[in-house]
Amino acid sequence: MNALPAWLRDYRREWFAGDLTAGLIVTVMLIPQSLAYALLAGLPPQVGLYASLLPLVAYALLGSSMTLAVGPVAVASLMTASALQPLATPGSPEYVALAMQLALLSGVMLLAFGALRLGFLAHFLSHPVISGFITGSAVVIAVGQLPHLLGVKIQAHGVWETLAALVHALPQTQPVTLALGGGSVLFLWLSRRFLARGLARLGLAPGTSELLTKLAPMAAVLVTTALVAGLGLAERAGVRIVGAVPQGLPSLTVPLPSLETLGPLLLPALLISLVGFVESVSVAQSLALKRQERIRPNRELVGLGAANLASAVSGGYPVTGGFARSVVNFAAGARTPLAGVISAALMALVVASFTGLFHHLPHAVLAATIVVAVTSLIDTHTLKEAWRYDRGDALSLLATAAGVIALGVEAGIAIGVACSLGVLVWRSSHPHIAVVGRVPGTEHFRNVERHRVETVPGLLALRVDESLYFGNANVIEDRIEARLAADPGIRQVLLVCPAVNLIDTTALGVLTELQRSLARRGIALSLSEVKGPVMDRLRGTPLGQALEGQIHLSTHEAFEQARRTLGAV
Amino acid sequence: MNALPAWLRDYRREWFAGDLTAGLIVTVMLIPQSLAYALLAGLPPQVGLYASLLPLVAYALLGSSMTLAVGPVAVASLMTASALQPLATPGSPEYVALAMQLALLSGVMLLAFGALRLGFLAHFLSHPVISGFITGSAVVIAVGQLPHLLGVKIQAHGVWETLAALVHALPQTQPVTLALGGGSVLFLWLSRRFLARGLARLGLAPGTSELLTKLAPMAAVLVTTALVAGLGLAERAGVRIVGAVPQGLPSLTVPLPSLETLGPLLLPALLISLVGFVESVSVAQSLALKRQERIRPNRELVGLGAANLASAVSGGYPVTGGFARSVVNFAAGARTPLAGVISAALMALVVASFTGLFHHLPHAVLAATIVVAVTSLIDTHTLKEAWRYDRGDALSLLATAAGVIALGVEAGIAIGVACSLGVLVWRSSHPHIAVVGRVPGTEHFRNVERHRVETVPGLLALRVDESLYFGNANVIEDRIEARLAADPGIRQVLLVCPAVNLIDTTALGVLTELQRSLARRGIALSLSEVKGPVMDRLRGTPLGQALEGQIHLSTHEAFEQARRTLGAV
Repeated sequence: MNALPAWLRDYRREWFAGDLTAGLIVTVMLIPQSLAYALLAGLPPQVGLYASLLPLVAYALLGSSMTLAVGPVAVASLMTASALQPLATPGSPEYVALAMQLALLSGVMLLAFGALRLGFLAHFLSHPVISGFITGSAVVIAVGQLPHLLGVKIQAHGVWETLAALVHALPQTQPVTLALGGGSVLFLWLSRRFLARGLARLGLAPGTSELLTKLAPMAAVLVTTALVAGLGLAERAGVRIVGAVPQGLPSLTVPLPSLETLGPLLLPALLISLVGFVESVSVAQSLALKRQERIRPNRELVGLGAANLASAVSGGYPVTGGFARSVVNFAAGARTPLAGVISAALMALVVASFTGLFHHLPHAVLAATIVVAVTSLIDTHTLKEAWRYDRGDALSLLATAAGVIALGVEAGIAIGVACSLGVLVWRSSHPHIAVVGRVPGTEHFRNVERHRVETVPGLLALRVDESLYFGNANVIEDRIEARLAADPGIRQVLLVCPAVNLIDTTALGVLTELQRSLARRGIALSLSEVKGPVMDRLRGTPLGQALEGQIHLSTHEAFEQARRTLGAV
Repeated sequence: MNALPAWLRDYRREWFAGDLTAGLIVTVMLIPQSLAYALLAGLPPQVGLYASLLPLVAYALLGSSMTLAVGPVAVASLMTASALQPLATPGSPEYVALAMQLALLSGVMLLAFGALRLGFLAHFLSHPVISGFITGSAVVIAVGQLPHLLGVKIQAHGVWETLAALVHALPQTQPVTLALGGGSVLFLWLSRRFLARGLARLGLAPGTSELLTKLAPMAAVLVTTALVAGLGLAERAGVRIVGAVPQGLPSLTVPLPSLETLGPLLLPALLISLVGFVESVSVAQSLALKRQERIRPNRELVGLGAANLASAVSGGYPVTGGFARSVVNFAAGARTPLAGVISAALMALVVASFTGLFHHLPHAVLAATIVVAVTSLIDTHTLKEAWRYDRGDALSLLATAAGVIALGVEAGIAIGVACSLGVLVWRSSHPHIAVVGRVPGTEHFRNVERHRVETVPGLLALRVDESLYFGNANVIEDRIEARLAADPGIRQVLLVCPAVNLIDTTALGVLTELQRSLARRGIALSLSEVKGPVMDRLRGTPLGQALEGQIHLSTHEAFEQARRTLGAV
């Protein structure tokens, strides 16, 4: 076994310029984001910086994406806060220890899923549910930052409580904080909106101008920190600042959870793992497709698991692949995960020597970067598409978003998964059943209501467009009986089964009863196009024996036989 | 609107003999059962009698089965006990009031389901889950009766606790109680096992002998009551007896739940309604089929709902259609629900004038009738069949039974439903995908591994045996990519879609990406046998537009075109 990853073994010199540029630009984005997301997670600022060191190296060695930028992200930070706030005081040493334990559990789970090939679990989070979850989270996060922007302190949980408390606290707004925070929001929003276009008009390449706008948060941080430090705004105007950030690299420990904390951390760790995995894979995949690279989901589980373990042992908190940073990494020319290693090295330099620079950084400006970053996560596009294409999916999306906003992240995901499974079962319990006939001149059979087809008098040929299982077996029986009641001339019922992928025990019982009851009335039951796996099971059951000779390979064959038996034209 | 039900409007004189006989025999079964099941539900004996009066009349007027015998049943009694024991002391007036409220809620829910045509909700209880639930309940019920059979008093909840407490309490066993209880169990078991055969050998018709054995519980009640009264066993040997049962018909009240009790009663009422409905319909349907009668599920909801409302307002508790009594009713010749009305009238006579007869009836004998009745509910047949036919269903059954025994009825049902949905989703997330070719000389296409078929070089024709949705979209994409990697000569991918009943938003996104990625590699994507409802949605989406002209009505057509395009033989 070769311990080096393929990209490193076969590294080509011409890739280095791109990796270096991308590493530099991502670092400039990562510094304010890691501080801001630590704040969002209720953690001291250095925890965000620590989560941006070793995890990047671990992912570079074990992940499968060439361009995914791992580290602290908004949604996982919100989920961390929501998991830990009931357990300890935000910012306290116990809270930090719990965050490290959460990363450890999350890492262990991701690795276990990778080893057990359980990556498919993530498939239960449908695209609309994930979209609704992220949109809801973005709203919760943005609302949570409003007090920081206004410079007021409130004690509130959840969106409604926070908004209600804010209305009362409005008179306490600190004008200087609001000016710094509001000014930053405006600057960041305008630069995102117009800067790229303006720079392009000045003659810069569109790609380069696009990248430069990503540096706006760093510019806001530098300018406002200088202002606050120079004018003494913290002391004179009560502007809350980051304060002393410990300098020096984190020491390594293994943060094992105690038996009491293990219980409440398990579910949040699972959700952070799954949501983080789904998000990372979808970002990684969409970037990989642009360069004909391939993402291997089980390798991603291992890469993300290792990143979280690395975060846990080096004083960090749960990390995953971030959307915005990955896109920038890709656009800035990253060819291999070396870009991530370069970012990690630069972050290490900052943590080891320059944390003093953040002392006068105002909270309001970090809040501004968060608010502007998460508004881009609000996804109305998927909602619109789903609304047009599939109303049930759109409702799952809305229910998930509403659940996250009104009840919190865990309840939101639970509602989303329940909705999407509910829609699925509801649909399959109301199956589409078509009466079919032959398309003239072919051996192909289609719905009599949609196509001009030939039928055989006395034969009722029904195509059930669903597996037969407990959720619909009785419905299907009822519909057959209704058709028989409507046409007493029917002598044979043919079930056309290309869409029947399963007949479960309940449906087998219903079909067995149906066959007996039809036989008593002198009506034959036959099947066609039964698939191999379904046929394998049917053989040897009483129904299989009763239908001996009545199970036809093709519907054509079944029609030919019915034509002979029923003596029709 | 004619207020009279059809059976009463068109009543024929020749039906009366059968209805009268059945009404009499069912009453003789109903008296000990209604007393015993009230005991099981933790209610005073008269509540069981009251639940056997008006509900029978209400069902006779509104239900759709000619032979279903409604009244107190074992499983609903257990569910009542398990719902109410946390809320009040068994036997207390509050407990009785809560039982009436539970019947009221259950009745309202059943009527609402009938009005909203929500009968399909019951379909979520698959046959294996119901079977496991009833088997588990039978075990819980039987174990719960052991202390009564031994004459010991223990304070315990659940199967394990009861068994553990029994071991400790064994030395306190009352010999006379054990003799009465154990003797009754032996007598009932022997009479069930051998009496019918013995009577038949004496020259009685097999049907008549079968029915006579159903009177054994009444015989046990009469003999032991006479013994206890005559020998004064209650006073001299400490045998627990039923004691004074209030004489006279119940007064009518409307037992409205208070706001505090409403909450904890809702879920139990829902479960009692659904389980009772599913059981009643399945018994009613199997009896109706023998006489070419028809059960209408929505009418059954109304009939059972009315029966529960009637029980609630007349001092009863939740009722439903009982398996054993319905079978006896049918076998004894009941032609119409008049048999039920006759039973109700006889029960009314007993309640009004003869409750004194039950004073010396020993609890141990009631326990014996319960134990023998529920052992017949233990259903190993379904387990064996499911084990042979569908391992997943068998595991759902076992999980439900184990859940009921270890954790209680509500947890058991929840586990069962979760298991059966889980099995369903697990299956559809691991879809069967077959490479298909043409069966020579036909226009029919089958799995290349199961049939001798013709293929077109350069064409990969895949039949996906499942709807495309969030649970399997990525799996399917991965499998297609794996096939492409294995055979670089493939120029066209054809998805044969007769089994695709739905393409949800998530799968639409995956397919859209797949089409683009294939196109970039010079590989065409096409579809065949897309069903009408799926096609309706696909039209107008970007994928539908990109596949313009590549969606074929039949696989035959798609193969013919591929043969031309790819220039193969």
